[in-house]
Amino acid sequence: MKKTIYIAGLGLIGGSIALAIKRAHPDYEILGYNRSEKSREIALERGIADRVTGDFASFAPLADVIILAVPIKQTIDFIKELASMDLKPNVIITDAGSTKVEIVSAAEAYLSGDKVQFVGSHPMAGSHKSGAIAADVTLFENAYYIFTPSTLTKETTISELKDLLVGTKARYVEIDAAEHDLVTSQVSHFPHILASSLMEQAGAYAENHQHTNHFAAGGFRDMTRIAESEPGMWTSILLTNSRAVLDRIEDFKGRLDKVAQLISQKDENGIWEFFEHGRVTRKEMEIHKKGGVDSFYDLFVDVPDEEDVILRILELLRGTSLVNIRINEENREDIHGILQISFKNAKDLAHAEQVIREHTAYNITIK
Amino acid sequence: MKKTIYIAGLGLIGGSIALAIKRAHPDYEILGYNRSEKSREIALERGIADRVTGDFASFAPLADVIILAVPIKQTIDFIKELASMDLKPNVIITDAGSTKVEIVSAAEAYLSGDKVQFVGSHPMAGSHKSGAIAADVTLFENAYYIFTPSTLTKETTISELKDLLVGTKARYVEIDAAEHDLVTSQVSHFPHILASSLMEQAGAYAENHQHTNHFAAGGFRDMTRIAESEPGMWTSILLTNSRAVLDRIEDFKGRLDKVAQLISQKDENGIWEFFEHGRVTRKEMEIHKKGGVDSFYDLFVDVPDEEDVILRILELLRGTSLVNIRINEENREDIHGILQISFKNAKDLAHAEQVIREHTAYNITIK
Repeated sequence: MKKTIYIAGLGLIGGSIALAIKRAHPDYEILGYNRSEKSREIALERGIADRVTGDFASFAPLADVIILAVPIKQTIDFIKELASMDLKPNVIITDAGSTKVEIVSAAEAYLSGDKVQFVGSHPMAGSHKSGAIAADVTLFENAYYIFTPSTLTKETTISELKDLLVGTKARYVEIDAAEHDLVTSQVSHFPHILASSLMEQAGAYAENHQHTNHFAAGGFRDMTRIAESEPGMWTSILLTNSRAVLDRIEDFKGRLDKVAQLISQKDENGIWEFFEHGRVTRKEMEIHKKGGVDSFYDLFVDVPDEEDVILRILELLRGTSLVNIRINEENREDIHGILQISFKNAKDLAHAEQVIREHTAYNITIK
Repeated sequence: MKKTIYIAGLGLIGGSIALAIKRAHPDYEILGYNRSEKSREIALERGIADRVTGDFASFAPLADVIILAVPIKQTIDFIKELASMDLKPNVIITDAGSTKVEIVSAAEAYLSGDKVQFVGSHPMAGSHKSGAIAADVTLFENAYYIFTPSTLTKETTISELKDLLVGTKARYVEIDAAEHDLVTSQVSHFPHILASSLMEQAGAYAENHQHTNHFAAGGFRDMTRIAESEPGMWTSILLTNSRAVLDRIEDFKGRLDKVAQLISQKDENGIWEFFEHGRVTRKEMEIHKKGGVDSFYDLFVDVPDEEDVILRILELLRGTSLVNIRINEENREDIHGILQISFKNAKDLAHAEQVIREHTAYNITIK
C-alpha cells in the first residue's frame, strides 16, 4: 500500500531518513516541511521530498506517518500543535531527538491514544556537516536506530516503522525512554562536557604556558575531538537531560577526588590499581560486548614514515571487510607510527595478518 | 671521532634510540645494559647493541655518552650510582623519562659539574608495544625530542646530543624542566586520569545499565583510548609530577562545578557559550599553531559502506604527503561514515580535493 510520509525538518537527519525511505519504498510519497526556503529548494532538487511546505500544519492531515526531525524544543512544540489538528486516524508520529524522556512525556501529555500512535526514535548518527545538502542515504548504515515506546505505542507501531525505515540499514533497538537518557548521559552527554571542559582548561593554560599547544599529542587530540560539535544541539541535550547529566558530573568529581587522594598520599599501589582497572574495563568492553567500544578485530602494523605505504598494504587487503583504518604518526606520545586496521570478523583479520606477513617485513601486532 | 655510547635499558625507547644512533653513526660503538637476559639477547641479535651487560656499573666508565632509558625511579637510582663511579672526564649523561623535574634535581644533587655534563631528555614517543623486540628506528620520526637543561649542562652539551640523535629524525625542543612538567600535566598526565576515570565510571554504570556498552560511540571510544596504556609508567608519572597534576584536577573540578551550575539554573545561553568556547578554542589550536592539535590539512569524504572504497580513493592520492587516514562508521553518533584524510601541506590537500572530485561522485568537505 502506498503511504504518505511527512518529514518535518529536512536537515541532515530528516533528509537522510527521507532518502532511506525512498530507497526501500520508491512509491511512497514524501512530504517535507522546513522553515528555510533554501533547504526546501535543495530538498526538491535532490529528490529528498516530493512536495515541500513552510507551513507545518498544512501537510500534517495528509500523512500516514509523521517524523519530527527538528530540534528538541521544536519537536515538543509540534507535538502540541498536532494535538489539535485533524489528522488521519491512527497516524504514526515519531521523532529523531537525542534525548527521549521530555519528548515522550510531551506526546503522552498532549496526544490522544485513541487517535494517534506515538513512539520516540533516536537514530544514533550524525556528521560534522548539516543541512539538506548533507543528507545521505548511507548515514545510518550499521548505526543504532533506537525506539522508545510510550503509552501511545500500539503493538504494531514499531514494526511498521521498522519496515518503513528498512532502507536505513540501521540496527534497531527498543529501550525505555528513561533508560535511554540515563545511558546516553554516561556514554555521550557527559563525555561531551569532559571534552569541552578539557579544551577550555587547556586553552586557559596555554595563555601562560605556550608549549601547551605544541605538546598536545594524539591522546589529547582524541579526547577533545567532540568539543568541536555544534553547540546548539548539545545545549538542548543538557537542558532536556539535566538530572542524569548532573548525576554523572557529581559522580565523576567523586572519582577525581579519590585519584587526587591517592596522589597526595603517594599511594603507588592505589594509583596502579586505578589505571589497571580502567585498562581492564576497556579491554573487557572491547572483547566481550558485540557492538560496544572497539568491537572490531584490530591489526597493528608498524609502518615507516614513507609515502604510499598505506596504499601498499591496502592493496594486499582487497576484498576484506576492512571497516576502519588509522595511522598515528604525529607527535606520538601514545601510539607509535602504527597503522591500525580494523575488520568486521576474525577470519578477515587472520587473512590480513597472513598476507601482510607474506608480502612485507613490517612488524604486526594483534591486540 | 668514534664514540662509545652506553644505553641503559634496551626496551622500546632505549632500543629505538640505539637504532637511530646506528643509522646516523654506524661507526659508533653501542654498549647496552638490561636486567633481563632475554632482552640483552634480542638486542644483540637485532644489532641494537654491540656489547651488552647485566651489570650497570661495568660499562659506565667506557662511555662518552650515557643514556638512561629505564623507568623514572631506576633512572634516579642510576644517577646516584654514577656519582660515585670513575667515569670518562666530561661524559654526557642524559635520560628519557616522561617527567623531568625529579630527574634533573637528582642529577644536580648527586652529580658534579666538574666531571660530567647532564641534560634531561624526553623523547615524546611511545607505542602500545614494549621491549627490545619492538625497538624501531622510525619510532621518533617527526616526534618532539625535548631537552631540559640543568646546572650541569654546558654550552655544547645539547648540540652534541642533537648530533648524536640526528638519526631519530625527531623535532628538537629545549624547555625548562619545571615548565615541561607543567605543560605535560595539562596535555598528557591529567587527560590520562580523565580517560581512566571515565572508563571506570562507565564500567560501574554498565553494571546497572547494560546498554552502556552498546551505545558507546566514536566519541566515547576516542576519549577512553589512552585508558589502555600501561599502568606502571603512568603511576610513576603521577608520583613524580604530583603537584602539577593535583592542580589540574582541582582546576577541572571547578570547571565541572560551573557547568553543573549552568545546567541546574537551566542557563541556556551559558551552556551554549561553554560549548562554543570549547569549539572555538580547539579550532584556534588547529589553525594557528604549528605542531599543535590537528596541525594537518584535513579532507572529509563521504563514503558508502562498501568494500575497497578506501583503496579506490588512496589510489587517486598516490604520491601525496598523506599522513593520516581514518574512517568512522561504527555506531556513529558523532561523525558519519566519513573518510578523514590528513595531509602535511595545503598544496596536497588541494590536489587531493581536485582528483577525488574528478574521479568520484562522493561529497567532499574541507574543514
